[in-house]
Amino acid sequence: MSKRNALYAQSGGVTSVINASACGVIETARRHPGRIGKVFAGDNGIVGVLTENLIDTSKETARSIAALRHTPGGAFGSARYKLKSLEENHVEYARIIEVCKAHDIGYFFYNGGGDSMDTAHKLSQIGKRLGYPLTCIGVPKTVDNDLPITDTCPGFGSVAKYVAVSTLEAAKDVASMSRTSTKVFILEVMGRHAGWIAAAGGLAGNLPEDAPHIILFPEIPFNRQAFLTRVRRCVKDYGYCVVVVSEGARYRNGQFLADTGLVDAFGHKQLGGVATVVANMVRDKLGLKFHYAIADYLQRSARHLASKTDVDQAYAVGKAAVELALAGKNAVMPVIVRKSDQPYRWAIGETALGRVANREKMMPRRYITKDGFGITAAGRRYLQPLIQGEDYPPYKNGLPDYVTLKRVLVRKKLTTNFVLS
Amino acid sequence: MSKRNALYAQSGGVTSVINASACGVIETARRHPGRIGKVFAGDNGIVGVLTENLIDTSKETARSIAALRHTPGGAFGSARYKLKSLEENHVEYARIIEVCKAHDIGYFFYNGGGDSMDTAHKLSQIGKRLGYPLTCIGVPKTVDNDLPITDTCPGFGSVAKYVAVSTLEAAKDVASMSRTSTKVFILEVMGRHAGWIAAAGGLAGNLPEDAPHIILFPEIPFNRQAFLTRVRRCVKDYGYCVVVVSEGARYRNGQFLADTGLVDAFGHKQLGGVATVVANMVRDKLGLKFHYAIADYLQRSARHLASKTDVDQAYAVGKAAVELALAGKNAVMPVIVRKSDQPYRWAIGETALGRVANREKMMPRRYITKDGFGITAAGRRYLQPLIQGEDYPPYKNGLPDYVTLKRVLVRKKLTTNFVLS
Repeated sequence: MSKRNALYAQSGGVTSVINASACGVIETARRHPGRIGKVFAGDNGIVGVLTENLIDTSKETARSIAALRHTPGGAFGSARYKLKSLEENHVEYARIIEVCKAHDIGYFFYNGGGDSMDTAHKLSQIGKRLGYPLTCIGVPKTVDNDLPITDTCPGFGSVAKYVAVSTLEAAKDVASMSRTSTKVFILEVMGRHAGWIAAAGGLAGNLPEDAPHIILFPEIPFNRQAFLTRVRRCVKDYGYCVVVVSEGARYRNGQFLADTGLVDAFGHKQLGGVATVVANMVRDKLGLKFHYAIADYLQRSARHLASKTDVDQAYAVGKAAVELALAGKNAVMPVIVRKSDQPYRWAIGETALGRVANREKMMPRRYITKDGFGITAAGRRYLQPLIQGEDYPPYKNGLPDYVTLKRVLVRKKLTTNFVLS
Repeated sequence: MSKRNALYAQSGGVTSVINASACGVIETARRHPGRIGKVFAGDNGIVGVLTENLIDTSKETARSIAALRHTPGGAFGSARYKLKSLEENHVEYARIIEVCKAHDIGYFFYNGGGDSMDTAHKLSQIGKRLGYPLTCIGVPKTVDNDLPITDTCPGFGSVAKYVAVSTLEAAKDVASMSRTSTKVFILEVMGRHAGWIAAAGGLAGNLPEDAPHIILFPEIPFNRQAFLTRVRRCVKDYGYCVVVVSEGARYRNGQFLADTGLVDAFGHKQLGGVATVVANMVRDKLGLKFHYAIADYLQRSARHLASKTDVDQAYAVGKAAVELALAGKNAVMPVIVRKSDQPYRWAIGETALGRVANREKMMPRRYITKDGFGITAAGRRYLQPLIQGEDYPPYKNGLPDYVTLKRVLVRKKLTTNFVLS
């Protein structure tokens, strides 16, 4: 078989382990020099592909590529840029094929969530139609854990660990001060439509008196009265109350508790500030002293506290993506298959991109307690293995020794510039 | 010399290493059974002392006491409860002496900040006056790093490390998304009157293009125009802008950017929400996409990311406090003495409580750059050693294995109940 170049691109919100997947892709490709030539990376993801700004990863040392495994963020740049449907904007897809053709790219590895799997899927179809068959393999990534079929999504386990540990630590703090100071602590976490991240906070404790005492899920319509009653009860019984609230928490009518009215590139409502909304309820209706934290990007970039399980899985899906491509597969995505809960055992499987594109996996109702404020034993059984193990980055001068790549661009071959829509 | 019991109490906001000081006090006391009988701990700090709720630490195993070294929060409970002046409320001081007398307490170790050092100082005076000489030793603690004389305050180094690491990690995230998404990221940190914690964020980078690009200190009057101009410039030059803002940032007239109007037990204004205020400016005046995080209690409870230097110093001041008491000292506090910056070397010294009580140490102006937005080489030289080294807690099931003490109360001996003011 002939030797072809490969293209790797990061898409959407980054995670603390997306670079571990990049590391898996690049290191595995380098082990097959007879089949794969250079690995190019989109400079700022698909935007770099469209504008023919391709990073030549062969200019990076083996040491730098290995360091990607412990470096958070998107080392090649990522993008929130959703391609339109084939009918609406055929031009963008055709341009990507043109860029691939110009650089003899035979393999495309797209590292992202549901939207990106859809893009990769369409590219594999249009390539064929345009007479340039492109092997398109998805590499799963999303802190939201909302991709279907795969047992979990690389990126999620580390956010889960961050949220569980932070909840545990903040609870220790609040508990020790509650006699004379803060009674209610609220931690706002990510998870636009699915409560997976908020649920992970539940791992911080197991007994009724353990924090978090209340989790507010997007899946459960927010009932102010039930919430306030529970807060008052916790403060009475335990002296304090710790609340983990998802940014996606909403009222029965579907309105988010924190609706700012802003919309992002994918048409998703931009959220934020639900902690403030909840804190104000606590103050106004219960008159209790509160504090709140908003983890925001800290939770998804906290490589210093990554889950070893998550890092291993992130690397494994990157590696498997290349292996699937070399095995002649197309329009597929490697997935995590759970073999057993305890001890936790997993393996890599695969699924068709068409089966994961644009589909969100919600929390099963049976993972949430009947009262809607906590996680069940089944939820715990699912979540617990995902935060197992620590995988500390090396430190230098008191700080993690994260790598910054050279990002040397490949010389352009096309004569036309592409104007982003 | 006769054998006397000891009393230990935690005061004010807790830290991720205040228990390491408790560990230092208790383990050292246990090594002198001929001089120190039992170590009692105030249940919820001074509140427990006033109400005669004393925890008998001899009921805790050596293993549990050792585990305090890696457990955040206040294991015996802390309190925000400021005793009035001797003139205003002699009764509280007299009550403490009465409780000490009832339980044959000869040593009082008070683990807190400036207010607590004042209390310990007064207690040593009134004990003498009431014919019950009590050895009162302060144990320094405050994340704010605002105690004078000591080179640094146990608690600060770990917050500094948390803020520096979080800034570095979030910056990696924002940088990789800035082409098509968030341009400005704001991290709100603690530090009511002194900018030490915000300054620590400056350790995340060293070059002009490195994050954080802007630090907003309480020491530098906030100039909205200069701030916005700098944000716009950073986004133009580097593609994004990371801002670390102290909760204590304020306008030239002294008004806090985020003034909620609430006041705590010490009469300090309760702050919060400065990140929102700054973010709104960025949105309204520059129209840039922003995100913000509020670290709140996470920063001071993050034992998982503690500075080894800080943990060692926290333990050392606890140990030294007992040794000073046994050496016959009174009304003193052990301090950290810096011997050299690089390599960092330090030793334990001592100072009179009267010299540290109620005095705040501000950031020297020379630690802040001329433009007021960053830290100087001198500031870096001071801060860098304090975040050195990692001291990971043991993990179990993916979570830090923090200890929860039994907190067995001593049987009361006084017939009167004390009503808190």
